[in-house]
Amino acid sequence: MGTETSSAVEISEPLLTSEAVAEEIPPWKDQITVRGLVVSAMLGTLFCIITHKLNLTVGVIPSLNVAAGLLGFFLVRSWTGFLEKLGIWTKPFTKQENTVIQTCVVACYGLAFSGGFGSYMLSMDQRTYELIGVDYPGNRAEDVKNPSLGWMIGFMFVVSFLGLFSLVALRKVMVIDYKLTYPSGTATALLINSFHTNTGAELAGKQVHCLGKYLSISFCWSCFKWFFSGVGDSCGFDNFPTLGLEAFKNTFYFDFSPTYIGCGLICPHIVNCSVLLGAIISWGFLWPFISKRAGDWYPDNLESNDFKGLYGYKVFVAISLILGDGLYNLIKIILITVREICNARSKRADLPVVSHRVSSTADEKSEHLMEEQLRNETFIRDGIPSWFAASGYVGLAAISTATIPMIFPQVKWYLVLVCYIVAPALAFCNSYGTGLTDWSLASTYGKIGLFIFAALVGKNGGVIAGLAACGVMMSIVSTAADLMQDFKTGYLTLSSPRSMFVSQLIGTALGCVIAPLTFWLYWTAFDIGSPDGVYKAPYAVIYREMAILGVEGFSALPKHCLEICRAFFVAAVLINLLRDVTPKNVSQYIPIPMAMAIPFYIGAYFAIDMFVGTVILFVWERLNRKEADEYAGAVASGLICGDGIWTVPSAILSIFRIDPPICMFFAPSVAS
Amino acid sequence: MGTETSSAVEISEPLLTSEAVAEEIPPWKDQITVRGLVVSAMLGTLFCIITHKLNLTVGVIPSLNVAAGLLGFFLVRSWTGFLEKLGIWTKPFTKQENTVIQTCVVACYGLAFSGGFGSYMLSMDQRTYELIGVDYPGNRAEDVKNPSLGWMIGFMFVVSFLGLFSLVALRKVMVIDYKLTYPSGTATALLINSFHTNTGAELAGKQVHCLGKYLSISFCWSCFKWFFSGVGDSCGFDNFPTLGLEAFKNTFYFDFSPTYIGCGLICPHIVNCSVLLGAIISWGFLWPFISKRAGDWYPDNLESNDFKGLYGYKVFVAISLILGDGLYNLIKIILITVREICNARSKRADLPVVSHRVSSTADEKSEHLMEEQLRNETFIRDGIPSWFAASGYVGLAAISTATIPMIFPQVKWYLVLVCYIVAPALAFCNSYGTGLTDWSLASTYGKIGLFIFAALVGKNGGVIAGLAACGVMMSIVSTAADLMQDFKTGYLTLSSPRSMFVSQLIGTALGCVIAPLTFWLYWTAFDIGSPDGVYKAPYAVIYREMAILGVEGFSALPKHCLEICRAFFVAAVLINLLRDVTPKNVSQYIPIPMAMAIPFYIGAYFAIDMFVGTVILFVWERLNRKEADEYAGAVASGLICGDGIWTVPSAILSIFRIDPPICMFFAPSVAS
Repeated sequence: MGTETSSAVEISEPLLTSEAVAEEIPPWKDQITVRGLVVSAMLGTLFCIITHKLNLTVGVIPSLNVAAGLLGFFLVRSWTGFLEKLGIWTKPFTKQENTVIQTCVVACYGLAFSGGFGSYMLSMDQRTYELIGVDYPGNRAEDVKNPSLGWMIGFMFVVSFLGLFSLVALRKVMVIDYKLTYPSGTATALLINSFHTNTGAELAGKQVHCLGKYLSISFCWSCFKWFFSGVGDSCGFDNFPTLGLEAFKNTFYFDFSPTYIGCGLICPHIVNCSVLLGAIISWGFLWPFISKRAGDWYPDNLESNDFKGLYGYKVFVAISLILGDGLYNLIKIILITVREICNARSKRADLPVVSHRVSSTADEKSEHLMEEQLRNETFIRDGIPSWFAASGYVGLAAISTATIPMIFPQVKWYLVLVCYIVAPALAFCNSYGTGLTDWSLASTYGKIGLFIFAALVGKNGGVIAGLAACGVMMSIVSTAADLMQDFKTGYLTLSSPRSMFVSQLIGTALGCVIAPLTFWLYWTAFDIGSPDGVYKAPYAVIYREMAILGVEGFSALPKHCLEICRAFFVAAVLINLLRDVTPKNVSQYIPIPMAMAIPFYIGAYFAIDMFVGTVILFVWERLNRKEADEYAGAVASGLICGDGIWTVPSAILSIFRIDPPICMFFAPSVAS
Repeated sequence: MGTETSSAVEISEPLLTSEAVAEEIPPWKDQITVRGLVVSAMLGTLFCIITHKLNLTVGVIPSLNVAAGLLGFFLVRSWTGFLEKLGIWTKPFTKQENTVIQTCVVACYGLAFSGGFGSYMLSMDQRTYELIGVDYPGNRAEDVKNPSLGWMIGFMFVVSFLGLFSLVALRKVMVIDYKLTYPSGTATALLINSFHTNTGAELAGKQVHCLGKYLSISFCWSCFKWFFSGVGDSCGFDNFPTLGLEAFKNTFYFDFSPTYIGCGLICPHIVNCSVLLGAIISWGFLWPFISKRAGDWYPDNLESNDFKGLYGYKVFVAISLILGDGLYNLIKIILITVREICNARSKRADLPVVSHRVSSTADEKSEHLMEEQLRNETFIRDGIPSWFAASGYVGLAAISTATIPMIFPQVKWYLVLVCYIVAPALAFCNSYGTGLTDWSLASTYGKIGLFIFAALVGKNGGVIAGLAACGVMMSIVSTAADLMQDFKTGYLTLSSPRSMFVSQLIGTALGCVIAPLTFWLYWTAFDIGSPDGVYKAPYAVIYREMAILGVEGFSALPKHCLEICRAFFVAAVLINLLRDVTPKNVSQYIPIPMAMAIPFYIGAYFAIDMFVGTVILFVWERLNRKEADEYAGAVASGLICGDGIWTVPSAILSIFRIDPPICMFFAPSVAS
């Protein structure tokens, strides 16, 4: 086993300025404000829309936490500034309030991901069923449940809160005793703390300005693009054969999408390069190779989305890469977790407070200790009683056990109960792993749940049961890790855990309504799941195929598909192993199999976009490292948000059946 | 008569730094260097290419002098820097050498304009003849002379040097005695002087960097655009219906052309707005109005470029606007000139040196006088004997009188002689006018020559005779004004007039070869003069029509065309009068008729491009005035040069009949 993980970010805990130490900490109820909730709801909606868009188009979702932090800060500051200009006194905007808003927004838009609107929930619909094929073994017409606002909101409410209660009692152990890093949470705390210093506020103002600029550019550009994407055969910029018509046929083109360029700017270089590598391997070599064997390996003249043909290879190879990578990391993180827990226990006996700072002087040390004291006191002061957490969990589990079989008759109540008995252990594993590595493996736990339950229930309803179980597991495991992440943020910003918890509850409640509603916008407006459209919803087919795999085993795969899948599964494990055993200066150039898997199914175009983003960032970093570090996130968020906002008018236009007026299309030059 | 002219720039003469005064001035022969000539030839070629491109597409040519200055400075500095790194000693780069290069480049690419490759020379070709119509009265098949390298180079050589000799004897009178402003020449001198201070060189370095950046962007973009402009029906970005298909039909669209955006950045706001206003009046209202009357005012079912139809209106209305504006300004500038000469003569009796600085203290005054002394001495030291100038002019005129009738048999030798007897007087008028107002009216003098000679020769060859006379007049008048402009620059940069004169001679000689050669590139590679293509060569038809008008009078115009033309002619005069009689805060918003005329013939698209440029500049000026002032010229030059450089590979591809691979085209959306 290696000792390092790819996404672990090394961030030492920041010293608080003495100013901050002297500052009064508002009581927990004052940390939750009406203006904060309004801002949270607004940003929650925006980020839900963006998350859905990404989930339903390519399935790569970069972290939008920085954008949430920036925009939350900006909106409240603008509001207080506006009121001050009118001469109305307002409560000062504290960093605790900022933290609460951040937590609420993240909880809300987190549900757009863990709610499975692009994956397990969508896998149940008629479209996906038909895509896989009515005569495909194990794919039954009974196992279809089309999205509807009613059951989706209900399901969200009964599964999303459990994660919050499952681990809340362990917050002191994980944050104070084990001193887990939670890199994202720490980074968010750093950001919020910096906003509330003078220089930080100034930089934040500039970043917001930058974000706003790129948001407008991106919005206008998306709007402009819309006009040329009229009805017709592959119209508009989404079909721009930037690299020539030959490359376009193999999905290699740059489609001028600000969103994916933004993703490329946010994601680490290695992720972008892995995606591009995956695209080159699959669309550059593997698929052309396989499609030459049409008529031999699989029947010729199949439709492009028939699982007996190339489409089957695409889906199953992607699945095997995702599973290989997921399982490897799951095992690795469990091992690390176990080791660290043992270590921490033995260490704790010797040292009352573990200091991360090695080179600190005595003075710094004492100051550090004082701050830590303050943080610990603040963190412990507003307790959440264990009995409350325990009874909350039990109560919710009971409700859930009763209602889920009503939504999905294929899922029996005792299966749900089993889920809820196992879940806290898995949630703990995932929270601990995330704290160490910043890598939440929620979807991997979900997939394991999917396979186990699909297999348990078997042919008679196993597909829906598996998918539903996946949803339950994913929600609990994911929200538990988010909560702990937020507790770390709150700990570092001296926010009350009670206000954090309440804020999480509110955010989750908002998300349970907003996420399905915003999904509904897409569902009504666009042709979701069409393999030739923009909204391919790649994970819908992948998840349903996994469920069928769980029920049926490896029957009905096209020729040689199982061998290729096995090879890619093993390759995924080996590449991960290689990443871990080689020294960092080598391993940083080894690609990440999970990232490589995505273009296998979707196509290479978004890999090109992301690569453009990564090239821009690379050049920018070379030209002006400081500026790139300070503004790249803002630029990326602006690009993503602007495009995301345009989705709303575009969806509305689509609902009212208003087509773009012009079709821009491309043809080979007429021979002269 | 008004007292102000639109383009007069108020620039007081700069104080030289004492450092500069102390500096040694190299002897005149050292001011002309081999490296300087190499750089001049390179830049001359580049700017010839750009001038041709602009001339053959839309006919608007912004001043590229700043770009020439920047690039000349940059190339020589890079060269000396490179040699220094190799440890080879080089002569230091003086501002005199810089001035010589600038002069040489401007003389060279000036011929690309005054050589009439887009206007009078092209008017004689078969294409223009056919465009006007074989059965058009006065348009005779005998009056066709197709371009060929041989006669063009010959013609250039015999007409281009006369202007240089015509006024060289008067340089002291005009620069020292009359103290004419020559705003462009002064600005160029300021620029060159600033390059040779430390802070100036630093700014120049940054400007060059900026120019280079936008040059690469523009080049890459033009290259990218090329790939999609395949053979087919209106392919590529040049036919991008940015503002919708309806507006596109009336030529209102933004065609993503870096060149015209650059033009918009360089030209004053009022010029860009005038162009847009002209576009709106003509393509927005007048042409749709007239085309509705097809079948009544003119026969229906005519081809789009038949002079009996809408095309006739377009050309003649443009001609009447150009003539109205040109004549008004000619008369005005002659009147101003006469008045100023009288004034100057009476003033000169009282004051030995006229000081422009009113508020200067005694100290400054004495310093100023000292500098002026130095400048005057330098300027007078290296004389050019009058007998040399006179005999040069007479000799050249004799050669020219003998050879021009050989090139154009329609032009009799005595007509050429008359030209050369009248020309120096006109050259003086134009130089004096340019010195006062910065507005060279060379093309107006050319047009007057055209009408007079066409009328004199009459039906039998009047068209070619008029056009040739236009060329002779334009060359002399234009180069004389350029020369005096350069003498002013040389005077302010302490360069020897002798080196300036030699540099002008060399530049002109280079231009006589380079301008026809680069024109030949376009002629061979592109479909020059096609009214549906990119290279519309608007002035070719306009000049030929003017010549026919001179021969035939107003016969054969379509119905109501003469009335409309008269109205526009009068409007042009009135608008100019209004500009002059109103106070500056009003007159600055009154459009310029000459600028309005261009889109009447060509279409509105480049007006949109230029307007985009002006909007960018406007916003930039509001955001950061200093940065805009310092870098807008560099950005614009970069955009223009990058696109201009791409013309070369694109022409070569075209010569080898390599078509772009893809045709991007636009169609209305299919009804859903």
